[in-house]
Amino acid sequence: MILQKTHKILIVGLGLLGGSYARALKKQGFSVSAITLDRKSIDFALENGIIDKGSTQVDRQMLQEADVIVFALYPHVFVDWIRQNGHLLKEGTILTDVTGVKSGLVQKIQSMLKPGVEFIAAHPMAGRELSGVENSDDSIFRGANYIVVPTEKNTFGAIELCQSLGKTLGFADVSVLPPKQHDEMIAFLSQLTHCIAVSLMCANDAANLERYTGDSFRDLTRIANINDEMWSELFLANRETLLGVMDSYRSNFDRLYRCIQNQDREEMRSMMRLSTERRKRFDKKV
Amino acid sequence: MILQKTHKILIVGLGLLGGSYARALKKQGFSVSAITLDRKSIDFALENGIIDKGSTQVDRQMLQEADVIVFALYPHVFVDWIRQNGHLLKEGTILTDVTGVKSGLVQKIQSMLKPGVEFIAAHPMAGRELSGVENSDDSIFRGANYIVVPTEKNTFGAIELCQSLGKTLGFADVSVLPPKQHDEMIAFLSQLTHCIAVSLMCANDAANLERYTGDSFRDLTRIANINDEMWSELFLANRETLLGVMDSYRSNFDRLYRCIQNQDREEMRSMMRLSTERRKRFDKKV
Repeated sequence: MILQKTHKILIVGLGLLGGSYARALKKQGFSVSAITLDRKSIDFALENGIIDKGSTQVDRQMLQEADVIVFALYPHVFVDWIRQNGHLLKEGTILTDVTGVKSGLVQKIQSMLKPGVEFIAAHPMAGRELSGVENSDDSIFRGANYIVVPTEKNTFGAIELCQSLGKTLGFADVSVLPPKQHDEMIAFLSQLTHCIAVSLMCANDAANLERYTGDSFRDLTRIANINDEMWSELFLANRETLLGVMDSYRSNFDRLYRCIQNQDREEMRSMMRLSTERRKRFDKKV
Repeated sequence: MILQKTHKILIVGLGLLGGSYARALKKQGFSVSAITLDRKSIDFALENGIIDKGSTQVDRQMLQEADVIVFALYPHVFVDWIRQNGHLLKEGTILTDVTGVKSGLVQKIQSMLKPGVEFIAAHPMAGRELSGVENSDDSIFRGANYIVVPTEKNTFGAIELCQSLGKTLGFADVSVLPPKQHDEMIAFLSQLTHCIAVSLMCANDAANLERYTGDSFRDLTRIANINDEMWSELFLANRETLLGVMDSYRSNFDRLYRCIQNQDREEMRSMMRLSTERRKRFDKKV
């Protein structure tokens, strides 16, 4: 089953990511509606042609019309939404999401749904240090990765549909990972980097640092501008795994520290060469 | 004393930075010559109009003609060069450099020079993860910071000349810091960030990580592609100061670790809010 122009898409939660999904899908000719709490977000999206229809309340007709529903909500809000409104979903609807942590969440959502409604989780590895539909921008998907995160409850058809959604949105690479492996990857690649940036930014309050900085510090701390409500929830949702990758990162940091302390230049250089070699694989292919 | 078009510039060490200096100065109409070991670098620079004259050997006539000499060499090579060739410099010549650590170096170079030859240190906060004059590019100076690093031996005239060199090269902000303060800033803003990127890259050898990554990891580890010969020398040249900033960063990282471990969401969020607030000052003004 592949996403087709006749499929009607509903976005629940019209913020930065929801809005970027809507923009990308509208440009491809899809019919897109949205449900979100904030009136201003709906008005902005309608005025700018980002959606066709919008509502600030759970609109039964929109739910009945939708073939694919994308949830772009905080994890606990997503769970609450399904608990309250899951019974209103029509049979055959495919649900997907954008949530950053999967292990606890996916099985919980799947167990709450009535038969005939399927949730296939996904994680778009794209974002901006801004929020709200006003800042949405589908060019953030270009060159980026999209991960489909199925469980044993998912059908082949829904996985395939979700993969084709990723391609339609414009992602460069669409891959598939089970929840546990997804959360391990994301702990290292995304959550740990945010921990590092926040720690670094908290470590020095000297005046005028910005007058002396170079791009390395700017690039490393870009994500230190962080949504504390969302990220603290995501960190705690992936707590054990995140603590594990923090440990392994710190043991390497400590090893480099000892090299500098002991003036062990050869060991230091071997770490740098390993790092250089590994980094080469990560350049963006745009 | 301000840099003028009649000043003849000599670059010693025509790599990425030396080449970028030469490009910027030639575009402004200066006469630029270069001394570098590698014949191919000279040939490339002459063929591409990056310099007017070049030599692979210490050319006495070039030294006699030069009003300003920019040294773009590894620190120990710079010291060796002055030891061997310092007596050939003509009275009135102003020397400057691009070296990343200053405290040990600046006083040493100044003490080796004959009367009438003045060394005013500088640190251009710009670079690329590539080397060689073939990759030089003066657009890296746009929006970037340039730090003049005088000691009590420097004259007002030489400091002023060096500031105007930074402006002429196209830097957005030119500031002045004594060597000790410079090295403290740079330990935190530049060396620590490189330590973090290298440690992070060494911490995980899972396959296919690049298929799941987002931009935060890419941006943070850009500098993990590192020249191990140069950076290991710079780390050891600033050893005590670098260990100090590594300690204060790690104590903040450990604090965040304990927040996650103890599920102390409020403390975690207060670190994130501080980090967000501080980060706002660092956006590039281009």
